[in-house]
Amino acid sequence: MRTQVAIVGSGPSGLLLGQLLATIGVETIILERSSREHVLGRVRAGVLEQGTVDLLGEAGAAHRLHTEGLSHSGISLAFDGRLHRIDLTGLTGGKHVTVYGQTEVTHDLMDKREATGLATVYEAANVALRDFGGAAPFVIYEKDGVSHRVDCDFIAGCDGYHGVSRGSVPEGALKTFERQYPFGWLGVLAEVPPADHELIYANHERGFALCSMRSPKRSRYYVQVPADERVEAWSDDRFWDELRRRLPPQTAEAITTGPSFEKSIAPLRSFVAEPMRFARLFLVGDAAHIVPPTGAKGLNLATSDVRYLFAGLREFYRDKSEAGLDAYSAKALARVWKAVRFSWWMTTILHRFPEAGEFGQRIQEAELDYLVNSRAASTALAENYVGLPY
Amino acid sequence: MRTQVAIVGSGPSGLLLGQLLATIGVETIILERSSREHVLGRVRAGVLEQGTVDLLGEAGAAHRLHTEGLSHSGISLAFDGRLHRIDLTGLTGGKHVTVYGQTEVTHDLMDKREATGLATVYEAANVALRDFGGAAPFVIYEKDGVSHRVDCDFIAGCDGYHGVSRGSVPEGALKTFERQYPFGWLGVLAEVPPADHELIYANHERGFALCSMRSPKRSRYYVQVPADERVEAWSDDRFWDELRRRLPPQTAEAITTGPSFEKSIAPLRSFVAEPMRFARLFLVGDAAHIVPPTGAKGLNLATSDVRYLFAGLREFYRDKSEAGLDAYSAKALARVWKAVRFSWWMTTILHRFPEAGEFGQRIQEAELDYLVNSRAASTALAENYVGLPY
Repeated sequence: MRTQVAIVGSGPSGLLLGQLLATIGVETIILERSSREHVLGRVRAGVLEQGTVDLLGEAGAAHRLHTEGLSHSGISLAFDGRLHRIDLTGLTGGKHVTVYGQTEVTHDLMDKREATGLATVYEAANVALRDFGGAAPFVIYEKDGVSHRVDCDFIAGCDGYHGVSRGSVPEGALKTFERQYPFGWLGVLAEVPPADHELIYANHERGFALCSMRSPKRSRYYVQVPADERVEAWSDDRFWDELRRRLPPQTAEAITTGPSFEKSIAPLRSFVAEPMRFARLFLVGDAAHIVPPTGAKGLNLATSDVRYLFAGLREFYRDKSEAGLDAYSAKALARVWKAVRFSWWMTTILHRFPEAGEFGQRIQEAELDYLVNSRAASTALAENYVGLPY
Repeated sequence: MRTQVAIVGSGPSGLLLGQLLATIGVETIILERSSREHVLGRVRAGVLEQGTVDLLGEAGAAHRLHTEGLSHSGISLAFDGRLHRIDLTGLTGGKHVTVYGQTEVTHDLMDKREATGLATVYEAANVALRDFGGAAPFVIYEKDGVSHRVDCDFIAGCDGYHGVSRGSVPEGALKTFERQYPFGWLGVLAEVPPADHELIYANHERGFALCSMRSPKRSRYYVQVPADERVEAWSDDRFWDELRRRLPPQTAEAITTGPSFEKSIAPLRSFVAEPMRFARLFLVGDAAHIVPPTGAKGLNLATSDVRYLFAGLREFYRDKSEAGLDAYSAKALARVWKAVRFSWWMTTILHRFPEAGEFGQRIQEAELDYLVNSRAASTALAENYVGLPY
């Protein structure tokens, strides 16, 4: 087989890149090691920056998002027993975010890809990237016991933190930066109406909590737990009790409980690999960087990478210029580091850190107090939350 | 002897409190363990918030300050080989800071106190605070081998971090918060014109540097050094060389060197003791809290304490109300913690921390980049630097 861009991974970044390239007639094949159902079974965040919504629209995959997505003009920070609202829209000159599950984004993009008749190979085993250092890269994989080879101009590594793409880069060519956080998020999905129409990020002496939602009927809640916590230790009752204890009284009372249909613990990590290009291999999204979910930047950052890579590939195929591709890594990383900083900062001010000590704890309280009482500081949070300019 | 308010310490906060009380006819005695010359020999920072200037004016001690003080409408952050100016005045709706040495402030207040005929006992030995838990506190001290006793209504502990006031509080009544930084500031005073007409705060891979001044003819420069560094290891030549290496080329070239007439190393520390009142003893300024000099908040915070304490004492003597005194500790601490946070943050973004690691270093770079490119973030810095509202 031959294609122009071989995309490894059928998560939202790989699918979005494929659809954008389709709009300018560039061929892609997506190789995905899991099944379609497995990919769609992954539960991820769902707060989209306007730039992410716009790019999904450009790819022709935003119809359902425009109908079902919830437009949010603010978030609340909860501490000291009450809510402190950050007016995202008022502070950023009219910007807002859209709540729409990442799973739904993936679903819409898959549907669009199928409707466009583009090839995705699911359950592609032993995917391996070859010769991307030279002019004739190719990808090999096995499907149903048969080996295949896809020759291509470029490889887009959109296969996440645990994917093969980053691991294929020659040793020593990558510099990595990492921060582990001493806790995780225990998350629950339940078919109950959310406590509030906007997200609530709570800092409480018992730990962080987040009230989020997927739709007016489906809620997503999280509580901070130790990094080594076992999900089996958390019955639904224990979860709801703990959640309510970390929220201001009026929010706790507004929680509708119900049986959870998903419950899992995710570790929190900041990670960046540099550079994001090796000759004809491009790393995109989680393959190159991970942010803790505080601040909801993961999907938006992947989309931002796709935007830069698509611009570079369009220049290459349409204008015969490699300038955009040459600029990809630097441009993407400049925005990545800003979002990594923001996510680290949001994590730092909202969670309880065992090692912070009493001075650190007071500094955190002073920062929250300053943050919600200063228009400048609130604006800095808001402009990052809705998404910094590209 | 009997007075209304016994003030321990003749630094700027004790002197300022004394002058303010004099304006409403409340008597004070100041007890100072050092000599007048020793107090005036201390070299301290000299960036005054508008509120500090205003309060010195209220005390009738701002004439020379108004003539000789330098009004600054901005500061520069130096990194990545160039200056990034923060327009303090433009970002805060017209506010500015005044550069005027703390030594000069002290001098003016001492002169005013002498002109007003108010008593200061210098070289008061073995000062001890007594019975401040009850209605009849007094202070004892020795002078020229003779013991003295001053009965009073209240004691104001304005005697700094190493003074006797905080140490007089019964064990267990104070809660303290502390952060030590793994470096100090090596500072030099020289009779040379400053490199720039505004302050320059530099973050460089060799460490922090600060270009400051006392007057158009007198410069104050600092470089970050390890906490255990010895001042004897630093000849003037070594200092000037190191300073220039940490500055952008055009700033380094603008440095005029000359013999230093003061050279010392100050450790950096954040410290807060709570509460700031014990019955009839009030802790003021450095006696209750220390900030690292980054951000120039030490003197301004002491002044802010004096403002709240003066208001409380005025209410007590004029209106027979204890409400202001009862509110002193909470009001003062609210502003203290905001400035402690700001000073900690300025220190954190501008210095090199041995323990930060590569991830922390990149976060710092991303924060500086964001800071100077976001109007909201620049405004947050500016509003803190010129002084938050009382």
